[in-house]
Amino acid sequence: MTAPATRPAAAAQPAHGESPKVRQQTVRFAFFKVMPEWRRLPLAERIAHKQAFREVIEKWNIPGVCRNITYSTVGLRGDADMCIWTICYTVDEMGQMMAELMATPLGGYLTMPYHFISMTKRSQYSLGMEDEVEAETRSTVRPGGQKYIFIYPFWKTRAWYLLSLEERKVLMEEHIRVGLQWPRVKLNTTYSFGLDDQEFVVAFECNYPEDFLDLVQRLRETGASAYTLKDTPMFTCIRMTAAEMLDRLG
Amino acid sequence: MTAPATRPAAAAQPAHGESPKVRQQTVRFAFFKVMPEWRRLPLAERIAHKQAFREVIEKWNIPGVCRNITYSTVGLRGDADMCIWTICYTVDEMGQMMAELMATPLGGYLTMPYHFISMTKRSQYSLGMEDEVEAETRSTVRPGGQKYIFIYPFWKTRAWYLLSLEERKVLMEEHIRVGLQWPRVKLNTTYSFGLDDQEFVVAFECNYPEDFLDLVQRLRETGASAYTLKDTPMFTCIRMTAAEMLDRLG
Amino acid sequence: MTAPATRPAAAAQPAHGESPKVRQQTVRFAFFKVMPEWRRLPLAERIAHKQAFREVIEKWNIPGVCRNITYSTVGLRGDADMCIWTICYTVDEMGQMMAELMATPLGGYLTMPYHFISMTKRSQYSLGMEDEVEAETRSTVRPGGQKYIFIYPFWKTRAWYLLSLEERKVLMEEHIRVGLQWPRVKLNTTYSFGLDDQEFVVAFECNYPEDFLDLVQRLRETGASAYTLKDTPMFTCIRMTAAEMLDRLG
Amino acid sequence: MTAPATRPAAAAQPAHGESPKVRQQTVRFAFFKVMPEWRRLPLAERIAHKQAFREVIEKWNIPGVCRNITYSTVGLRGDADMCIWTICYTVDEMGQMMAELMATPLGGYLTMPYHFISMTKRSQYSLGMEDEVEAETRSTVRPGGQKYIFIYPFWKTRAWYLLSLEERKVLMEEHIRVGLQWPRVKLNTTYSFGLDDQEFVVAFECNYPEDFLDLVQRLRETGASAYTLKDTPMFTCIRMTAAEMLDRLG
Amino acid sequence: MTAPATRPAAAAQPAHGESPKVRQQTVRFAFFKVMPEWRRLPLAERIAHKQAFREVIEKWNIPGVCRNITYSTVGLRGDADMCIWTICYTVDEMGQMMAELMATPLGGYLTMPYHFISMTKRSQYSLGMEDEVEAETRSTVRPGGQKYIFIYPFWKTRAWYLLSLEERKVLMEEHIRVGLQWPRVKLNTTYSFGLDDQEFVVAFECNYPEDFLDLVQRLRETGASAYTLKDTPMFTCIRMTAAEMLDRLG
Repeated sequence: MTAPATRPAAAAQPAHGESPKVRQQTVRFAFFKVMPEWRRLPLAERIAHKQAFREVIEKWNIPGVCRNITYSTVGLRGDADMCIWTICYTVDEMGQMMAELMATPLGGYLTMPYHFISMTKRSQYSLGMEDEVEAETRSTVRPGGQKYIFIYPFWKTRAWYLLSLEERKVLMEEHIRVGLQWPRVKLNTTYSFGLDDQEFVVAFECNYPEDFLDLVQRLRETGASAYTLKDTPMFTCIRMTAAEMLDRLG
Repeated sequence: MTAPATRPAAAAQPAHGESPKVRQQTVRFAFFKVMPEWRRLPLAERIAHKQAFREVIEKWNIPGVCRNITYSTVGLRGDADMCIWTICYTVDEMGQMMAELMATPLGGYLTMPYHFISMTKRSQYSLGMEDEVEAETRSTVRPGGQKYIFIYPFWKTRAWYLLSLEERKVLMEEHIRVGLQWPRVKLNTTYSFGLDDQEFVVAFECNYPEDFLDLVQRLRETGASAYTLKDTPMFTCIRMTAAEMLDRLG
Repeated sequence: MTAPATRPAAAAQPAHGESPKVRQQTVRFAFFKVMPEWRRLPLAERIAHKQAFREVIEKWNIPGVCRNITYSTVGLRGDADMCIWTICYTVDEMGQMMAELMATPLGGYLTMPYHFISMTKRSQYSLGMEDEVEAETRSTVRPGGQKYIFIYPFWKTRAWYLLSLEERKVLMEEHIRVGLQWPRVKLNTTYSFGLDDQEFVVAFECNYPEDFLDLVQRLRETGASAYTLKDTPMFTCIRMTAAEMLDRLG
Repeated sequence: MTAPATRPAAAAQPAHGESPKVRQQTVRFAFFKVMPEWRRLPLAERIAHKQAFREVIEKWNIPGVCRNITYSTVGLRGDADMCIWTICYTVDEMGQMMAELMATPLGGYLTMPYHFISMTKRSQYSLGMEDEVEAETRSTVRPGGQKYIFIYPFWKTRAWYLLSLEERKVLMEEHIRVGLQWPRVKLNTTYSFGLDDQEFVVAFECNYPEDFLDLVQRLRETGASAYTLKDTPMFTCIRMTAAEMLDRLG
Repeated sequence: MTAPATRPAAAAQPAHGESPKVRQQTVRFAFFKVMPEWRRLPLAERIAHKQAFREVIEKWNIPGVCRNITYSTVGLRGDADMCIWTICYTVDEMGQMMAELMATPLGGYLTMPYHFISMTKRSQYSLGMEDEVEAETRSTVRPGGQKYIFIYPFWKTRAWYLLSLEERKVLMEEHIRVGLQWPRVKLNTTYSFGLDDQEFVVAFECNYPEDFLDLVQRLRETGASAYTLKDTPMFTCIRMTAAEMLDRLG
């Protein structure tokens, strides 16, 4: 195991004298499923496996460099047991951290049924609203600490991209107006064009699943919705510590 | 294993003084398939496995908090052996219960080929009919005790959502009128928008498969049917006790 | 193992005094594939496995209650080795019989890549033809004993169901006229609406594969063909005794 | 193992006195992938496995009855290692031969990710050209001995079948004219309607992959191409002896 | 193991006296995933496995004959761990090299979830631009040495091929003009028509993932984009030595 702090830490600090331009972040939502064989191992072995896995997650929580937020999906998906949301600055860190995770003993009993990478970037749709959506920090993700997160990859139809920017703005304004009716839902949009299969990965943080259910059903009636090509799979995840998330595995 | 009764029980009782608002329920249809290796285990071991699994199911039958109804799909699907229908009030309970189920020895030999979560909510289509569909308890599911249940996830086309509410009501009225011609079929509709891949999960309880067959074929001719995007997979399940359901595994 | 004859036998006989109404049958086409590991077992073990599996099939051949017809697909599909066509009267019998089959030692080495359930029912299209298609026994399936069977699940487009019954009759008449040009092909149509993923399961019995090939190619040119949504996978199966079918496994 | 020569040989010879009508052939392209576990076996065991497998292939090369041509796909597909092209006269021989192949020790370590069956028949499009396409032997396949074969299953849209035969002939003539510009490519067309998932299986033999690449790209611009529903997966295979093909497995 | 240098080397040198025509190259992007079981092996065994695998890769780096470039996808895809980009002159070399790779001990623990083969050829669209796109060496791929590569298979709609060459040129000119706005992205286009499932495999080399993200999003708005049928899966890969790539496996 190499010490990740050295190289990434340097990368995270702009050289003196440079204008403090906002750096784009690299984002990953990795979903893991434990193989049934793992559940048959002796308890002591499983405890040691979970401990080593947790240590790698924690090692890679480095302020200003890399952050991991952990979620359980046990009982909410049949095909995934946990989700690690990683926010850092380069795909190299992504690779190094995952190599270390999978090199733990638990790695020999995990599959990754879903895995999305993306980046932050400023939106095309500057809509003149004075809220956090418009802030200069738009190209950073700041997780809000809510109990649940709802994640899905997202593709628009090609017809969408042939609309004029003006037409798309009108549709996005309606979309955002609807979203503001559920203020307890916090949206994080990230971009995957060319980096992964989907175009966007969206992650909604909220303490109230019923709010998100109502919002998504209401959004079906907006004009922009007709330009959705695909927005599945959809994941409901419960935020908890890495230790709690791993204990849900058995 | 934590005792689920404490935390959820509190959640299930509104604080004194609050108006008795109907709480939305959280619903799960989890389909399990036993791995072929399990069938090769000694009989005594399999009996112990089934016993431990059954105990968790029964532990989570807590009046007012959580209910599990058990079905066999052996011989009715090639890719699933059993279905547990869980009705409770939070996704947290869903997670905790499943973690306990999968931590039993049988959990090391199970896959979950299908898994749907959803919530109850009032319908948009208040149609002025004086039957149970319109009752104030619409946001609760009350299983009817019939011998068979027919379950499927469901997506409408985006064109549906762009119809006016008035147009949709006309189509839903026709749909419901057709349904009333088969009064021995009881419908339970739940909502998954944003929580899981599908938009709806519908579950029809009936003692007469031929009734349901006729109803579904007849519904193909309604106007609303043209707005169905996808309504598969479809599951026929036989209600039986947890012990009977597990004995069908071998 | 319970004795299936008692319960189903009662169900199969209408009570004295009732009019002899034709009962709808429940139908299943179950496709099995042996796991590669099974082929590595000692010969004596494999022979015992096949013997026990065959005994369950034979036990469930009960005149008036349940019938099993056995087919090999070895060499005709890469993903299936055998097919059991079961015709009985309730899904409960389906479940019980399959539980017994899978509880044999061979069951620990089998997967079921395809599995279709359906029911018989009278056709909507009474076409005034004086052949077996129109007979009063239309809601029973009577296998014809031909050497080959060709099976596929079938979905029509929603546009089909929005045609008037009159329009559909015209299209079905053309379809049937074409079929009559290949009189050596016997068609069995069954209905799955709501019971399983597909709408129909069709099974054509014929001693001449080249006849069926020509018929299906010719049917592509009928008007009804444009309303086919999906009609795959398609299976060619060779009828043989259960013992012969099992010997093809190795 | 039964001796295949007896029964099929009889079938392959028309009775004395019958007119020498061309018999339709039954064709199979079976793709195999060796399981990773096989590669871990001791070398001597693997050599014995390959030897037994090869003997079955060779046993079923019976002039006038059955022919097997062997190809390696190692390094050309990630999901297949070898392809056996079998040409005989009945599906029964297909089944018997595959049962014998899979009963060898190598059979316990093989999967069949792709498997296509079809038959030869005369084309509908008699185009008045004096080449082999029009020969009286059109309903037999005669492999040409080229080094490479390119295989794919093929479906036309239903719109194609609603064109008049005259319209289709015009389109097929253009298609054939384009094909004749690459005379080093030899086409074998076979028919699967109702026998297997696809409508056609086409196999192009050629010593020059770059010719076939250019031909397929050029064919995209023909009128008939717009009526292609699906023409994947596509396989590039290298002809070699059974022994060489098996040695590529490791 | 045969010595690859002999046969291919001959093939790579045109005979004396021939005009130095540019030979088309054969290209492969093979993606590997290590099976979880491998991670459970003793460290010494894993080190030996990686060493033997690396030696085959290096053996097949033969100037003028075959070149392998190695990438890690650990942490960037959930379904692939590494990618080997092979550039040579015949599919026979492709087969021989892969047979040798998979015959190493690591081969017994690898799957190949994605695998694309293609060839180089001159573009149809000679656009009169004086850059490398137009150079006489267009039918060779010359990897640029950038740190990242972004790879995807690609299909155009059939409607595209029915446009006139003139219309397509106009659309391709717009496409290329957009691409030139991101000069730090280097495009390699290869052709798979008939050789593999996709029509094209494109590989973009770039040191700046954010550039590629912006380029792909911007290309969505071009006229040619509406003629894209499918362009997934999309892979982000990090270039590193074979030894480093293998060390990322654990």
